[in-house]
Amino acid sequence: MVKILLTNDDGPFSPGLWILYEAIKELGEIYIIVPETPKSASGLGITLHKPLRINKLHIKGQTVFLVNGTPSDIVYVALNVITGKLDLVLSGVNIGENVSMQVILSSGTVGAVLQGAIEGIPGIAFSAAVSSPEELEDINLSKSIRDFISVFVRKILERGYPSSVDIINVNFPPGRPRGVIIAPPARKRFSTIVSKRKDPRGINYYWLYGQPVEGEPGTDVDIVFSKGGIAITPLRLPLFDTCENSLKQIIDEINSILTYEGYENNDYIPSV
Amino acid sequence: MVKILLTNDDGPFSPGLWILYEAIKELGEIYIIVPETPKSASGLGITLHKPLRINKLHIKGQTVFLVNGTPSDIVYVALNVITGKLDLVLSGVNIGENVSMQVILSSGTVGAVLQGAIEGIPGIAFSAAVSSPEELEDINLSKSIRDFISVFVRKILERGYPSSVDIINVNFPPGRPRGVIIAPPARKRFSTIVSKRKDPRGINYYWLYGQPVEGEPGTDVDIVFSKGGIAITPLRLPLFDTCENSLKQIIDEINSILTYEGYENNDYIPSV
Repeated sequence: MVKILLTNDDGPFSPGLWILYEAIKELGEIYIIVPETPKSASGLGITLHKPLRINKLHIKGQTVFLVNGTPSDIVYVALNVITGKLDLVLSGVNIGENVSMQVILSSGTVGAVLQGAIEGIPGIAFSAAVSSPEELEDINLSKSIRDFISVFVRKILERGYPSSVDIINVNFPPGRPRGVIIAPPARKRFSTIVSKRKDPRGINYYWLYGQPVEGEPGTDVDIVFSKGGIAITPLRLPLFDTCENSLKQIIDEINSILTYEGYENNDYIPSV
Repeated sequence: MVKILLTNDDGPFSPGLWILYEAIKELGEIYIIVPETPKSASGLGITLHKPLRINKLHIKGQTVFLVNGTPSDIVYVALNVITGKLDLVLSGVNIGENVSMQVILSSGTVGAVLQGAIEGIPGIAFSAAVSSPEELEDINLSKSIRDFISVFVRKILERGYPSSVDIINVNFPPGRPRGVIIAPPARKRFSTIVSKRKDPRGINYYWLYGQPVEGEPGTDVDIVFSKGGIAITPLRLPLFDTCENSLKQIIDEINSILTYEGYENNDYIPSV
């Protein structure tokens, strides 16, 4: 039986967690492990500076493990303390979309799946373009999301996770989906991101915020918001690129300016 | 004159910041903007839930802007409030190496540069395999790091940043470098990452920690630790992959099971 970690960055009371659970509860041995409190925009942050604790809660008849850390922490705590080796990490359903590289890389929902990928565990992140838990609880919306996840994860388990990618990022549109499509990530979702204000003492402070920008046609931003479709975005981890022409030349020149003992001896060889 | 943001995740008093400053102070108009307090392992986290403040400090005759946020926050605060359009983001020199995908993706030092890349600004992250500020202050070590950075950044500015990549991650070995080389990232730097303990009341708690693993030959981990070289790791942002064969088939099947109104009408077309 496949062992599945179910996590999120909104904590145990998010309706998104339970839509995901209902969708996949029959597909394997399910472990629900989530942050104690919402951890949005935590990216791949790892908690190194304070001890982590694990608590248990029973919700809807299920054991839910609570960790006072980030979604990335949870993957390590799961593997080392709770679940042992995992076959799949599923994260979400997040309250709020995670579209565009800008948002994907700072998303806790996606962060858990990326962290799993580093450990060699395939994973899928699910997010919905809603702005509140209530909106996600809409009976038609939650049913369409649950139905999709149920079929999608079942098929992935039957066919095997695509070998060429590390994570799959799935975003649901606001309202009933009009289709499902493979979409590349836009680079940005937001432009201007700082709002300047004055506190009661007249001193400046700043909120980070953003104006949504329209996505290029066919990108995840475009599919979810303009087309009303479900965007499936398979991604590989940041890719090494040798920059053959440009960087090698610079490095050769550096080696002629700054002399390094090891280099002359040629006792190690680039593997690129 | 090029406008350069100089940042880090260790705060204003890290000797690494000043090694970097000394190395590049003559290469452009330099803005030093750093987190108020160390922000290690903050990845691309963005502060959305509390106001940010900007304070100024004068250190070594330079104006240093302090932001009570993460390295990612700093890029947005810089662009919107302090610097305007930037030509280059330089981050570091971090106390501690940032090698392997596992570490790179959760690194605040690299996070600032990745955030810059999303805004279309080229950048370079510098980290040193030292375990304390004192170690980095060693006169020979800091000189060799400063000399390298100085030549490297100057060459990059002269030749132009490599167009095929988004960030360049540079790691210095412990001790005097034996060479400089382009190296792909290892996937992992650490294995077992949770240490279980009991608090004074006998209740379990956990520290995240890791046992270093040996890097595959030629990877950044191997170059920095086994070969004693400077590892230059150019990276592209996570890459979209269509998974042509595997996922498309699943999606076609989903469309035959779950009927979406928009799909039948074929009123939007995948751009992949």
